[in-house]
Amino acid sequence: MITIDYSLAMAEAVGTAGGLRDPELEAEGKAFERAVRRVVDEAKAGVLGFFGLPEDPSTLRAVDDFAASVDERIADVLVLGIGGSSLGTRAVLHALGGPPELGLTRRRLHLPDNSDPWLLAALLGRLDPSRTLVVAVSKSGGTVETAAQLLVVRKWLADALGAAEARARLVYVTDPSRGPLREEADAEGIRAFDVPPNVGGRFSVLSSVGLLPARLSGLDAAGLLEGAAQMAEACRRTELRDNPAGILAALHVLHHRLRGRSVHVLMPYADALRPFAAWWVQLWAESLGKRRDRQERVVETGPTPIPAVGATDQHAQMQLFMEGPRDKLVTFIEVAEPGADLTIPESSGAFAYLGGKSLAEVLEAELRGTAQALAEDGRPSLTVRVARLDARSLGALFFLFEAATAFAGELYGIDAFDQPGVELGKRLASGLLGRPGYEEAGSEVREAEQSRPSRHRWNG
Amino acid sequence: MITIDYSLAMAEAVGTAGGLRDPELEAEGKAFERAVRRVVDEAKAGVLGFFGLPEDPSTLRAVDDFAASVDERIADVLVLGIGGSSLGTRAVLHALGGPPELGLTRRRLHLPDNSDPWLLAALLGRLDPSRTLVVAVSKSGGTVETAAQLLVVRKWLADALGAAEARARLVYVTDPSRGPLREEADAEGIRAFDVPPNVGGRFSVLSSVGLLPARLSGLDAAGLLEGAAQMAEACRRTELRDNPAGILAALHVLHHRLRGRSVHVLMPYADALRPFAAWWVQLWAESLGKRRDRQERVVETGPTPIPAVGATDQHAQMQLFMEGPRDKLVTFIEVAEPGADLTIPESSGAFAYLGGKSLAEVLEAELRGTAQALAEDGRPSLTVRVARLDARSLGALFFLFEAATAFAGELYGIDAFDQPGVELGKRLASGLLGRPGYEEAGSEVREAEQSRPSRHRWNG
Repeated sequence: MITIDYSLAMAEAVGTAGGLRDPELEAEGKAFERAVRRVVDEAKAGVLGFFGLPEDPSTLRAVDDFAASVDERIADVLVLGIGGSSLGTRAVLHALGGPPELGLTRRRLHLPDNSDPWLLAALLGRLDPSRTLVVAVSKSGGTVETAAQLLVVRKWLADALGAAEARARLVYVTDPSRGPLREEADAEGIRAFDVPPNVGGRFSVLSSVGLLPARLSGLDAAGLLEGAAQMAEACRRTELRDNPAGILAALHVLHHRLRGRSVHVLMPYADALRPFAAWWVQLWAESLGKRRDRQERVVETGPTPIPAVGATDQHAQMQLFMEGPRDKLVTFIEVAEPGADLTIPESSGAFAYLGGKSLAEVLEAELRGTAQALAEDGRPSLTVRVARLDARSLGALFFLFEAATAFAGELYGIDAFDQPGVELGKRLASGLLGRPGYEEAGSEVREAEQSRPSRHRWNG
Repeated sequence: MITIDYSLAMAEAVGTAGGLRDPELEAEGKAFERAVRRVVDEAKAGVLGFFGLPEDPSTLRAVDDFAASVDERIADVLVLGIGGSSLGTRAVLHALGGPPELGLTRRRLHLPDNSDPWLLAALLGRLDPSRTLVVAVSKSGGTVETAAQLLVVRKWLADALGAAEARARLVYVTDPSRGPLREEADAEGIRAFDVPPNVGGRFSVLSSVGLLPARLSGLDAAGLLEGAAQMAEACRRTELRDNPAGILAALHVLHHRLRGRSVHVLMPYADALRPFAAWWVQLWAESLGKRRDRQERVVETGPTPIPAVGATDQHAQMQLFMEGPRDKLVTFIEVAEPGADLTIPESSGAFAYLGGKSLAEVLEAELRGTAQALAEDGRPSLTVRVARLDARSLGALFFLFEAATAFAGELYGIDAFDQPGVELGKRLASGLLGRPGYEEAGSEVREAEQSRPSRHRWNG
């Protein structure tokens, strides 16, 4: 279903400055074995939940049952959630549902994942409340952006349908036992799905977080889990070269540590995977960007993930990747059989040579040419190849990159599952918004703002 | 219309490790004066075209006349173009037209900007050829992705409408005197607009490249130029601190050169500006990522641009920006008055404190909290503030970042207007596609692929 060709990340093909030598990869084998054992042990012990999601049929059953019970007249699903509560869902929607602007899925899915009112206001002006289901996703139940949106949307529903019918149009996806969303669901009899406490937001796409919206849109949630389960099998192997996530993790960590490649590019040659790359950016950045290592030493580490898409970014970022600093490792994703294709007609002009070829062939040639061009200048890349883009291969890709992130965390020596750095900004914003108990944080910002010198301001 | 607050990029507010000292900025004043003189002189001499676009009324007139002549029954505009031929147009569409999936513009604009058939195939299956206008954009006229799409789309039109009517539905935007698109337009009487030869693709949004699709969608093309013209005025000033583009350029170049900040983040707190950040990524990456400096010395330089959006990326990339390597400079864009807003209803739960506030207030608090949180850890940022997002301020933003890129090229000592690094990949792909004269390039790729060792492959 999936292959990984990493020959162009190795010295044999791109030279020692550009690639790793085989012994360098092998030297990481012991550390990798410890890493995979730790991750698998924590998964077994129930500390780390994402690893077991593909083999848990209960969520899928619950999601399927619920989706089957939703009225056929519901045409729109409004998902309120941000970060890990929306990025995976958007990746599923694009990859499996076709271009969302064409509305090809069974129900239209909307993801206004920001406190910016831009999209939500437009949606509320256009959607018919009587035909809309609202899914609010927040693991903690305390995400301010989602809470604020939910208050607005609930009133929009209640104004149109009355309070009781509004309640029936709400579904919460949240912690099974605590937090404001769970409490509200329990108190008011609102339907709620669980985000397992041991699954972090950015690792939650294969939980009800991603499966419920997928299923409501008529997409193949079961296939996602099947593909992920097959991949999970391979990701348990302790021999580095047998473990696809191990290969991904070790190549990125070693290119960073031994060759200074701190910029990691994910470049699917597939429009349908653009949001997959955005999902991966969160996964990689938030998991691996850490101030402290496991021993609490200050390290301030973390690679910089870059989303790209081929062939489009050959006309945007590729100039930098080809000629700029040698600090990048590019991971291509190739889809061998396109979901749709178009044949280029015969013509007599400058492009006669394209006649009879298909757009997918052009895309494939561009990927091969680009990888080779980078290699000829000693710039490394690897290619993850899927036979076709369907629910199974997408599920496998999700799991592959999640496991690679967990392993990379181990190899970097950091905790890949927390995000302590975002708390201060939240606290300061809470203060500005007048949240009780945060008054000092608000004053702190206002005083700092007033002390900033006006000479560092340009006013037209 | 626009202000720039760069206090948090300076040592006084974030410390000497995090910020620049005033004398460091002042020491760049002479170099900046030379930079701006050179750019302005080249603009006057006609070498550099982008600088004069806002003051050229002829394109706007031609675009307006044409748009007024287009049949009211035309409901969809299909823009074929990639890189600089689509990124600016998409930025205009989102910022001024509302969420494209809601189809709020006068005509729906579609931008399948890839050789991937995914979106184009879906569009051709849904659009009505009798109600579609096709705009093919390629400055050289030789862009293979656009050419391949155009051949497909032209046949789609001709099959439905006949060859003559198909011709009438085509509009080309290309070089005024050469290249395959221009030749075809001349030979067949196809309507064509000019991309001035002295305006590169990534600097072309304020030419017919961006103005024509904007106008066809009913958006305010004249406002774009007015705002840009006002900004151009300020960007001619030779005193660094008076020149907004100079401030942007110098801060980024000096933070890179003196503080090792090679990663430049653009983070608008506005969903409508997400594609603006993608437009800027191309501008910054392709202009500044260069192997050689002006003296032809090998430098392999160029900052890494990162697109982000607030508040969403507080839940994705912010952990890395807050705790990871101190190699980043973040530029926020703040929109003071939102285009739409939603009031949060009163409630009794955990979020009672939000009652009566608006989503835009939440967004603003989050930006202020985030900037302050970065600053408290000595991590620099600056904020470009626009009063509201309209055609004038968007035009000003386009020009501001274009001029900053030109000035940054001068300060880095590289040519910001070429892109030699993408040629090799194109050549190799042409070989694989059987383009006459490129046979050897095709063999080169195939031979290299066959020599790659199979042990560097994971096969499931």
